[in-house]
Amino acid sequence: MPKPKPAGKRKSKSPKKSSPGRRAPEKVSPTRAEPKHLPWGSVELEELNPLLQRQFIVGKRLMVARLVLRKGCIIPLHSHHNEQVTCILEGALKFWIDGKEIVVQAGEVLTIPPHMPHKAEAVVDTIDLDVFDPPRKDWIDKTDLYLRAQR
Amino acid sequence: MPKPKPAGKRKSKSPKKSSPGRRAPEKVSPTRAEPKHLPWGSVELEELNPLLQRQFIVGKRLMVARLVLRKGCIIPLHSHHNEQVTCILEGALKFWIDGKEIVVQAGEVLTIPPHMPHKAEAVVDTIDLDVFDPPRKDWIDKTDLYLRAQR
Repeated sequence: MPKPKPAGKRKSKSPKKSSPGRRAPEKVSPTRAEPKHLPWGSVELEELNPLLQRQFIVGKRLMVARLVLRKGCIIPLHSHHNEQVTCILEGALKFWIDGKEIVVQAGEVLTIPPHMPHKAEAVVDTIDLDVFDPPRKDWIDKTDLYLRAQR
Repeated sequence: MPKPKPAGKRKSKSPKKSSPGRRAPEKVSPTRAEPKHLPWGSVELEELNPLLQRQFIVGKRLMVARLVLRKGCIIPLHSHHNEQVTCILEGALKFWIDGKEIVVQAGEVLTIPPHMPHKAEAVVDTIDLDVFDPPRKDWIDKTDLYLRAQR
């Protein structure tokens, strides 16, 4: 966690005031995290392709995402260093992972270790909560082309 | 972190497992992590008090828990170093946190930064998915007396 820096950008006007322990009062301390209360309905929704909608909420060390997949939606084979836990709320996703085919139904959970390649297909219309540690930088940066390139 | 173990597959019927729903994450080989597919119905359910049932699934760096709270169930004021994200699936929880009262309804999310004290009460019968990073050691060790001591 970065420490707050002593005040401002080194303007040359008053050299004596920058005492090292002094923090800039206008700066929000990064150690003053606040709780966030968010209805999913208020969170940006991305239409990544006609069969896939995604929202996510980012914390300090983890991210929770809500995916709505229409029947037939395919998440192509990919892997990431982030640990993933997939909780199916409605519908079902079929996974190809670790040499197996696994259908994860509503009320079921799949843990996906870091770096493990996986592919998925929505067997029916599906709502899925995915948890990642750490947050998916490629999702935040919108560089997740494997999801965006599809029909 | 976790100690190395010989690679082999862990079949779910392994005779040394004492209770079928309970997973011992520390026994999973860090060199050969496997995906885990778990219906919530197969996961050990703890009745912490007459108003509170809890299940959890532990990954390497995060934990997902499913809590069923009857109306009036109180989670006493407490804090922990773990980051928490609470996703209400059904019902509503009223939180006292950061000097505010916040009612989190079904379809809403509350992020709780590490070390932030919070208390909650089920406004109605509620189902809640809580995500923690890292996993809650006190839950795994069953030393979470703040939850167990209540009526």
